[in-house]
Parts: sequence; C-alpha cells; structure tokens
Amino acid sequence: MAKNPLPASGAWRMGDPVGHRQFFTLPPERKLAIDVGTVMEGVTTAYETWGTLNGDASNAILLCHAWTGDSHVAGRAGEGHPTPGWWEGAIGPGLAVDTDQFFVVCANVLGGCQGSTGPASPHPSDGKPYGSRFPVVTIRDMVRAQARLADHLGVRKWRAVIGGSMGGMQVLEWAVTFPERVGAIMPIATCAQASAQQIAWGSIGRRGITNDPRWRGGDYYDAAPGDGPHEGLSTARMVAQVTFRSDNVFTDRFGRDMVGGDGSSTLALEQKFEVERYLEYHGEKLCRRFDANSYIAIGKAMDLHDVGRSRGGLVAAMKRVTMPTLTMGIWSDFLYPVYQQLQIRDMVAANGARSEYVEVDSPHGHDAFLIELEQVGPAVKRFVESLD
Amino acid sequence: MAKNPLPASGAWRMGDPVGHRQFFTLPPERKLAIDVGTVMEGVTTAYETWGTLNGDASNAILLCHAWTGDSHVAGRAGEGHPTPGWWEGAIGPGLAVDTDQFFVVCANVLGGCQGSTGPASPHPSDGKPYGSRFPVVTIRDMVRAQARLADHLGVRKWRAVIGGSMGGMQVLEWAVTFPERVGAIMPIATCAQASAQQIAWGSIGRRGITNDPRWRGGDYYDAAPGDGPHEGLSTARMVAQVTFRSDNVFTDRFGRDMVGGDGSSTLALEQKFEVERYLEYHGEKLCRRFDANSYIAIGKAMDLHDVGRSRGGLVAAMKRVTMPTLTMGIWSDFLYPVYQQLQIRDMVAANGARSEYVEVDSPHGHDAFLIELEQVGPAVKRFVESLD
Repeated sequence: MAKNPLPASGAWRMGDPVGHRQFFTLPPERKLAIDVGTVMEGVTTAYETWGTLNGDASNAILLCHAWTGDSHVAGRAGEGHPTPGWWEGAIGPGLAVDTDQFFVVCANVLGGCQGSTGPASPHPSDGKPYGSRFPVVTIRDMVRAQARLADHLGVRKWRAVIGGSMGGMQVLEWAVTFPERVGAIMPIATCAQASAQQIAWGSIGRRGITNDPRWRGGDYYDAAPGDGPHEGLSTARMVAQVTFRSDNVFTDRFGRDMVGGDGSSTLALEQKFEVERYLEYHGEKLCRRFDANSYIAIGKAMDLHDVGRSRGGLVAAMKRVTMPTLTMGIWSDFLYPVYQQLQIRDMVAANGARSEYVEVDSPHGHDAFLIELEQVGPAVKRFVESLD
Repeated sequence: MAKNPLPASGAWRMGDPVGHRQFFTLPPERKLAIDVGTVMEGVTTAYETWGTLNGDASNAILLCHAWTGDSHVAGRAGEGHPTPGWWEGAIGPGLAVDTDQFFVVCANVLGGCQGSTGPASPHPSDGKPYGSRFPVVTIRDMVRAQARLADHLGVRKWRAVIGGSMGGMQVLEWAVTFPERVGAIMPIATCAQASAQQIAWGSIGRRGITNDPRWRGGDYYDAAPGDGPHEGLSTARMVAQVTFRSDNVFTDRFGRDMVGGDGSSTLALEQKFEVERYLEYHGEKLCRRFDANSYIAIGKAMDLHDVGRSRGGLVAAMKRVTMPTLTMGIWSDFLYPVYQQLQIRDMVAANGARSEYVEVDSPHGHDAFLIELEQVGPAVKRFVESLD
C-alpha cells in the first residue's frame, strides 16, 4: 500500500483515457429535475454501446449496472477501464445478449464515478468537484437521466431492460416510470423496495465512510494520495462483500486458514485470517477505482428505492408493469432473498402479464448473478430472443 | 448525546457500586498461563451467585454470558448493574434454573469490562489501565480463569454448564478442557469453531473501532467524556445488531418507516429511517456500559475459538465430550446457523453420549435465546432436572 498509495478518489476524471466510453451532456436549457426537489445542470451520462441500432430502432437493449459497476459490461480492463466487463462473456456476437442482433447500451448511473455526473464531477458553478454539494439522488433520478440518453440515441422504446441488484432497481423504475418505453424487463436479485435489513447494511457502510476523518465531510478531492477516506470506504466495502457472498462459500474457500500460519499456535491480534485478508484486498481494490462519495450517494439511493413512493404504494405502482417480465433469484442470496423476487413475479403476474421466474442454483449468494454466467446467460438469451 | 456525554469507556471500575458482584482475585503466586504464551498476574474474576451450594457441592450450575453480557444473569438494573439480568425470569426460585435446588454461578469473562480483569483494569505493574497492553485472550483462557473460580467456590464438578453464543463457546471449551469437571452441557446458538463468515463480521466490527481516531491505539482511558471511541464502538455494535436479528423481524418492526416523516417526500441524506435510529440507539446504549477494548478482545477470542486447536482438530477434541448434552438452535439464526448446532449434536452423539437437540421456533434470529424465554426456559428446566 505504501508503495503505490491509494488515490483520494478512484473516480474517472476528465482528461483520463476515455476507453470505450461515449458521453452525452444535457444542454444548458435541459435541466434535470430530481426527486429531492431541485434541478441539476449540465448532467453528463457516460455510456457504452455494442452492436448497431436497426432502422426502426426496435432492437435496443438497456443493461443497468449494480452499485460499484459502471458502463463497462463487456470488454477488457485497460486504458480508461479499471475492470473487465462485469458481464464479460455474456454480451457479444452470438452470446447471451447477441450484439449481431441487438444494439446494447449501458450507462454509468447519475451519482456514479466512471464518467457520469457524480460527486467527483465538476460543479457547473465553479468547476470544482461537487463533493458535499452533490444532491441526494434516487434510482428514479438515474432512470430519468437514462431516458434523456435514450432520446439522444433515438431509442423510443427498449426491447428489454435488464439488470441485477441496484441494476434491477433501475429496471423496475424504468418499467413503472416509463412503461410505454419498455418492451420487457428482467430484474435480477433485486427488490421493488429496499427492506429494513438492506437499509441497515447500507447505512452501516455509509457510516464507516462518514466516520473516517479523511472523508472530510465529503470534500476530500484535494487530498494527497494515501490521505483519502480509504479506511472508511474499505470498511463499507467489507460489509457489502460479506452480504454479497455466502457462509458456505466463505467456509469452503477460507475456512479458518490464517495468513502465513497454521492457525494452531499464533494468536497475535494482528495475525489475520485469510478471510480478513480477502476482505481487505477487496476494500483496497475498490478504493483504486471508486469514489467514496459515489458509494454514499448510490447506497443512499438504494435505501430510498421504493417504486411505490409518491405513487400510492407498491401495489398501485406495480400495476403499471404489464410488459413481459423474467425475474431471476438466487437461492443462496441472503441480501436480496428469493421472497423479494417472488413478490415481483407475483405482482406482475397479477396484472395478467407474462411473468416468469428463474432461480439460479448457486451457493455463491447475491453475487451469483455476476458469477454463474452459464446459468444466467441462457436464461437471458432465451428471454430476449422470445420477444417480438 | 450532548446533554449527557458518553464515557470514554463504559467499563465498571474499582470504586463503582459493586451491586450483586463478588470478586475473586488470584493470589500473586497463582499466575494464569494463557494461550498466547504469557502469564497474567492478579487476575480478578467478578461473579454473581444465586441459591446455596449443597453439602457435597453437587448442585452447582455455571451460566456463561455472551459477548456484551456480564455476570448479571438475573436481577434488576440499578446500582452497579447497567442492565437487568440477561436471563431475567429464567433464574430464581421455581424458575427454569431453580435456585431453590441449584447453586447458580455466572462470571464476567476474562477480557470483559464488568469487574473481571480486562483491558480497562489496572495493570499490575503500574495500576494504569492495560489498554493496548492487554494480551490476546481466548475462550479457553476465559474457561481457565473460571476453573480457578470453581476451585475457590469449592465446586469440583458442575452439574451443568449452560450458555448461548459466546457463552456456548465457553460451554464447549469447558467440556473439552475439563471433561471431568462438567456433568452436562447445554450449548445454545453457538459453534465448535468460528466460521469464516463469523470471523468476517467480527473483523469488520473491530475495524470500525480501530479506525476511530478516538480509539487512540487502545489507550483512550484518559479521554474526556464524549471524546472516546464511541463512533467506532457504535459502528461495531450496529454490524453485530443486524446479524443478531433477522430480516423478517426488521421488516415487521421498521419496514421503511422514516424518523419524523412519511417517507414519501423527504429525501435528505440526513433523513433517517427508523431502522437506522434503532441501530444508533443500540450503538450509543452499548457505549454507556461497555468498553471498546473489551469489545475487541472478546471479539478476537470468538474469532480464535476452535475447540480443536492444538488438540488434533475438531473431531478429536470433541471425542472428550461424553456428558449429557442438550444443544439448542434457532431456525432464523443466520449468524450461528442451525447446521453448526447439528454438528455439535452429531459429534457428541457419535461418542455414544446422550445428545439432544431442541430448535427454538422464533423469527427473531440469533438473539432469540435471550428473547424466547417461554421456549428456552422449559427446555433448560427439563434438561437440568433430568440430570442426577
């Protein structure tokens, strides 16, 4: 860590290699009204596309990324892209989402840190990072920004909107906010409204960051490398990482192994278990590519997620979802339990719509939607290719 | 909080009201050898007793407390006791553990902060708090200290040793370390060795404390009220509190209710959900009665818990457990899952011993062993009264 100090923020900044990104910035006259009751100016959405939009713009599929994901669904890590695609192997010619047939789009969310307007972006008033000035945004706001992008791309109606976890929240908000613009949806390992336990985990993670003195109330962008809110962001990531995986897999993978010891004799407090090293590794890794304020902003948006808000409640809101729906759950997911997936399926089915459910048979917990592509891929393929 | 600042440490200190506590201090010549390979001098054990030891000392029952518990199993909160008894209603004349029949003992663990030697206690060399000088202790060390107390009390053999969670770890260590001194055991919602996921949760909680600058490397006892490691200890407690309860109960109790709002309009980042307020309340409450270093010391002991350590592994160690055993699990406990309880039952049964299992039917998660006394109590009573 000392050798290569962590940046104060892992956000992509203007001037960094753009990689596969494209950008769409709302012109000054097109402000984005957001749920908190204010407007944002000059909102930029960074996005990537694969395949070609056909003549009647009927082959567009929107993929929505999860909490610490970004627009890079497919492709290598490298210049401008800190990670390989989060569904690498599922998007491409002949793959689950066949880019020979479909025009595929993924946008970094509003509040994110990989090119779209977020807390690390320049504030229009002074060009300095928003930092503590970044407003509370909601999943619905993210979807509103994506709708502007769809207009820009000439996509009136998506053939399908697909995403897991926080991506699935966007999927549902798309279906409820713009039902006429969505041909079908595939929400995966997600929820129609965040539960108290999900809020609890999110809140604890944010607290880890805001308690870090190097967070500086949110204005840490001038901090030297190594002097940013890494401890806090790592703690938050560690909480999340445990909830993203499973007891069984942790036992199989780490058991009670100790770093550099057999676990039978060394009892020093600083002696780490392998599972601790694994969590610290993931915490540090996230610091290199993510922004602590984005982590807070998106986490809060997830806690606030409730498709029923200001719409007469969940059941009333879900009445708008009449397009074909494939909901996917993971039996070992204790963060977004199967009952939340069945609730979505049942609410859509109650509308008389085509409503299917597929359960991923995996011990990996929540992250299985990113891991078990051999199960997720065929289900996606079958579903999107069944749509007319 | 400003009105009544939190103490830097919530530990009981010499000079505080003793309440129902009694004390046993090892004389200078009787040092306590501990697993980490050192010896501790002048180890004090604070304990409470109920009922009367009979003539042949055959009616003694040891109760072992959990992480943030202490010797106060029964009785009111008040002078010297920050909380009511953790099994209040289960211990007393005619109750589950009938003090008309039995002599009941509960000791604050080594490393604790309610009267037994722990990080907040005076170091024998200079009378100042151990702080960062407190050694790593294990569950086995706690049990060794309790064995000295048993000698002092004239109890050669416990009729039964009973405890839940970290208390259950002590129960199993008693059975394996001193099988000839234990007539029967009742481990509840516990494990024979900590799993990787349990270690992960423990480690994240400790990290919350050690990242708090007010923790001061463990030497914060001189800090003014309000200037101790409260944020860190609260964060640690919040992580634990979520794992101690359940998704279902959080949903039933808090849902998406917001503090002072209907949740439909107010989206300020500082607007709290009720579940967040609940967690913060429990975090603050713990700071008033607990010590951050004790939280770390006991948490580390739990992570290190492995009855098989230095004994040829789990199965070999558990061969020593041939006394009647009642293992109790809770179906909704995701921290100490039922499979860990069944593993204990099965290992004891494999020795040809009486090995029973009772499952608490409760949605409350891990803490059900403290909550569902109408289920736990009768099982305890039936078991202890079946022993001869």
